[in-house]
Amino acid sequence: MAQKVLVTGGGGYIGSHCVVELIEAGYHPVVIDDFSNAVQGEGNVPESLRRIEKFMDTKVEFSELNLLDKPGLEKIFKQHSFYAVMHFAGLKAVGESVEQPLRYYRVNLTGTINLLEVMQAHGVHNLVFSSSATVYGDPQKLPIDEQHPAGGCTNPYGKTKFFIEEMIQDQCSAEKVGTSTPSVLTSQDRSVRTHREHQITFYPISFTVIKNLLFSPLSEGVRDYIHVVDLAKGHIAALRKLKDNDGCKVYNLGTGTGYSVLQMVQAMEKASGREIAYKIAPRRSGDIASCYADPRLAEKELGWKANFGLERMCEDLWRWQSQNPTGFSNSTVQ
Amino acid sequence: MAQKVLVTGGGGYIGSHCVVELIEAGYHPVVIDDFSNAVQGEGNVPESLRRIEKFMDTKVEFSELNLLDKPGLEKIFKQHSFYAVMHFAGLKAVGESVEQPLRYYRVNLTGTINLLEVMQAHGVHNLVFSSSATVYGDPQKLPIDEQHPAGGCTNPYGKTKFFIEEMIQDQCSAEKVGTSTPSVLTSQDRSVRTHREHQITFYPISFTVIKNLLFSPLSEGVRDYIHVVDLAKGHIAALRKLKDNDGCKVYNLGTGTGYSVLQMVQAMEKASGREIAYKIAPRRSGDIASCYADPRLAEKELGWKANFGLERMCEDLWRWQSQNPTGFSNSTVQ
Repeated sequence: MAQKVLVTGGGGYIGSHCVVELIEAGYHPVVIDDFSNAVQGEGNVPESLRRIEKFMDTKVEFSELNLLDKPGLEKIFKQHSFYAVMHFAGLKAVGESVEQPLRYYRVNLTGTINLLEVMQAHGVHNLVFSSSATVYGDPQKLPIDEQHPAGGCTNPYGKTKFFIEEMIQDQCSAEKVGTSTPSVLTSQDRSVRTHREHQITFYPISFTVIKNLLFSPLSEGVRDYIHVVDLAKGHIAALRKLKDNDGCKVYNLGTGTGYSVLQMVQAMEKASGREIAYKIAPRRSGDIASCYADPRLAEKELGWKANFGLERMCEDLWRWQSQNPTGFSNSTVQ
Repeated sequence: MAQKVLVTGGGGYIGSHCVVELIEAGYHPVVIDDFSNAVQGEGNVPESLRRIEKFMDTKVEFSELNLLDKPGLEKIFKQHSFYAVMHFAGLKAVGESVEQPLRYYRVNLTGTINLLEVMQAHGVHNLVFSSSATVYGDPQKLPIDEQHPAGGCTNPYGKTKFFIEEMIQDQCSAEKVGTSTPSVLTSQDRSVRTHREHQITFYPISFTVIKNLLFSPLSEGVRDYIHVVDLAKGHIAALRKLKDNDGCKVYNLGTGTGYSVLQMVQAMEKASGREIAYKIAPRRSGDIASCYADPRLAEKELGWKANFGLERMCEDLWRWQSQNPTGFSNSTVQ
């Protein structure tokens, strides 16, 4: 029987792509999402999952649930026996987090504490947490490997990602201590893993911005753009690795190549066959000049590397955008 | 009419001493405590407060309340119009936090998020938070001033103190942005302040340990021992400063002088007139060699400095211990 994996925030951009990869890999995903980022489709199901069901001709288990609803979370854990949890749920807008820090701390931190408590209560010890490159703050060296100091982030969103990593690592250490009597320790199931994806981009909403006006960082702003499918596959590779790893482990997912925003514009122009209007603006406060990952550990230990280059990313993005000119909200499945 | 100040964890060691100083300074303290550290006295009141009431011949308003009980907290804020909050509540045992990290994150972080949310909802913007020197981690320089980098702590207890400081600073910034329209801004009431006390010692329980056996750090372990009354007065000085400061401000409270544990033993021997048995043990993992504060900013801006030296600390401690040989639990007010 397929192993069940709870996907928090599984209706969102990265989460829903991971649901596809979980199904492809033979897992049984169970999705929770509260529609704070996912667009609601017919039947009170995220539109992303509705499309997955249609295209893959399968049914995806889904419950509308916010992680702050602990009794609701308890109920899901009573209904299913989970092999692992993939944790994507959380608020994620940097600017909003500066304006509403308490909301971010409440939703992201207390939500994750609820999740970790319920996991512990139900004996679920496998976790893939989707963190963010923002925890590295202003890079001290490039490319950024997993030894790079974390915690240098200055906005509340980034801090919540870092704080959650710390919580997970502490909980992982405590659980290992708690079960280190030789007869009880089953190392393959005790591992809790932090998974830090590198520079998630290509949200449909960013794309809309790209079409009209590009904010800086421009030529100086170098980022590690990665195809969301590559990213999802990296998360699944981390999930597979849970059975081998003991303890908490961090993997940086990225292409290892930095592209400037100007290169992005040119690639999008090529993919779309259109000219893109842009304007060079001053760097926004908090924007770092360059940031790209060292993905060698992920390749070595997870057997994963990014397959898609900039050209393919732009082609896929353009295709999606052309077919869904207003995003998920007003489009229908063809 | 006296300004009302909510004291969370006001039944505990530092909190209850602050209650005394608040009354002395003409404030009206309202205490909440859940007895997780405070000893319960007659009439379901912390024994510490019962004694304050007796010795000061006054009544101290008290409610048994855990900060995780948000409706209960709402009720307190509806009953009273608070000028400020002094926040001491929280779990504080380093070793326990390593074993039960989720409990520490739940109680300390979610408890503080509740407090900050209710403060915001009720328009209370003045806060004195009692942090800990542990947020500085292994000192990079001595004495430790307020510019010393924070966040280097490795145990969950210390991390919660640091995370709370970050939350408070972010909330403070957000509130300032939110009210920066010239006609609305009343700077004296918008300030949120982080207050970091330096090396709290002299808990009755530590003293029991001192009587019999001293753990390391010994001669090498230098700490900034401060009298709890000095510490309490420092917190009141920070409270008074709230009306002048705009934004979030950190003050290190300490004597500025480091004493070794061996010097402590000798001072205790002198104060008690008894020989203290001790044993030199290896340094415990995580113990830092030396740590003492630079209290000059507190003196300059708060007009506060520690008045009591090592000798007086030991005398007072010995007197208390002699009169309460088993701590609060089985002793009665004379």
